[in-house]
Amino acid sequence: MEIKVLKDILSVNEQMAQRNRSVLDSKGVFMMNVMSSPGSGKTSLILETVRRLKDRLRIGVVEGDISSSIDAEKIGRENVPVVQINTGGECHLDAGMISRALDSVPLEDIDLLFIENVGNLVCPGEFNLGEHRKIIILSVPEGDDKIYKYPLMFNIADVVVVNKVDLLPYTSFDFESFSGAVKGINQKAQVLQVSCTTGQGIDDWIAWITGCVQR
Amino acid sequence: MEIKVLKDILSVNEQMAQRNRSVLDSKGVFMMNVMSSPGSGKTSLILETVRRLKDRLRIGVVEGDISSSIDAEKIGRENVPVVQINTGGECHLDAGMISRALDSVPLEDIDLLFIENVGNLVCPGEFNLGEHRKIIILSVPEGDDKIYKYPLMFNIADVVVVNKVDLLPYTSFDFESFSGAVKGINQKAQVLQVSCTTGQGIDDWIAWITGCVQR
Repeated sequence: MEIKVLKDILSVNEQMAQRNRSVLDSKGVFMMNVMSSPGSGKTSLILETVRRLKDRLRIGVVEGDISSSIDAEKIGRENVPVVQINTGGECHLDAGMISRALDSVPLEDIDLLFIENVGNLVCPGEFNLGEHRKIIILSVPEGDDKIYKYPLMFNIADVVVVNKVDLLPYTSFDFESFSGAVKGINQKAQVLQVSCTTGQGIDDWIAWITGCVQR
Repeated sequence: MEIKVLKDILSVNEQMAQRNRSVLDSKGVFMMNVMSSPGSGKTSLILETVRRLKDRLRIGVVEGDISSSIDAEKIGRENVPVVQINTGGECHLDAGMISRALDSVPLEDIDLLFIENVGNLVCPGEFNLGEHRKIIILSVPEGDDKIYKYPLMFNIADVVVVNKVDLLPYTSFDFESFSGAVKGINQKAQVLQVSCTTGQGIDDWIAWITGCVQR
């Protein structure tokens, strides 16, 4: 029988997250936790970033999925170290899973580590992993009202990336209204527009990422 | 301190689900549990169905959201009874929440009750609500690989509705491949193509719904 004591789980998670952060800092690795709904473009944005930056930064990726290793295989083709976590049903990654994954990541040879969380706009927001930044992706076809329905995610974000802006002409997504709503609950988060299909806005995204890592 | 005993929770949930089903059957109400990622079009599909069918069937809606009542307000404008459940953080509806909501639904005056679950392709699949059918929506921009990454949802579906097919020309979604993959893990589920924007396929969806209710 599986017993979950939520408060204890979160406090154990917090301790593990701090341990992860110490390990990362001691190795000089900057870790980014990428979160979104299923299909918003986490893998595509990570792939695009790897392609643009792999000659300037040594990048690693941890892929979190309930099952399958489709995304890890895609990333692996770019010849960067990638570790797959299959949660086997859990709807989020936790700091303990990341701690075990870090054992398989060549931290000495990495500057920047992306964690692709399980596709879910709810639970991943509750679990710190020890990351330096939280990246939330929302894709245009999901609609600009998602901030009202899933406020936690947008509240904790360091950056909100609006992906698939090439689809703006075919949807009713109002970027100005969405961006204003983000500012209303989270003054610190930048809101970026990108399209991994057309390349629009990717330069701004790359500038944001490199600005974080170099600080 | 919140204590969760997962096995017990699921068994209590199952009992509540059976109770919900008995209540519904005694009142002649057919209940559909609509599940998908955030932004796949649950509200849009329910709205379209209400508009097409409200002269033939008496329809009610229960809206599940972590917070906000945006969707309930949209549905309410169609003059059908709607009850909002705010889960306050929980990433899915459970049978107990539905049991309490049913107390506020005029069951004597309803033939068909839609439950719009929380937008999440993981946890809602684990909780029976007492529904007669499970409807899974996947929207084209989410990508045709989602069945491999979130298999439970597609495994339990009675029907898989591929929404936003008007965006097929702008994405790499392969409907034949996706439909074949669904059949590979779930022979009973029909796979329908619809667009709530253009109306494409809505007739087939309405035929499926009315076929269920009349049986």
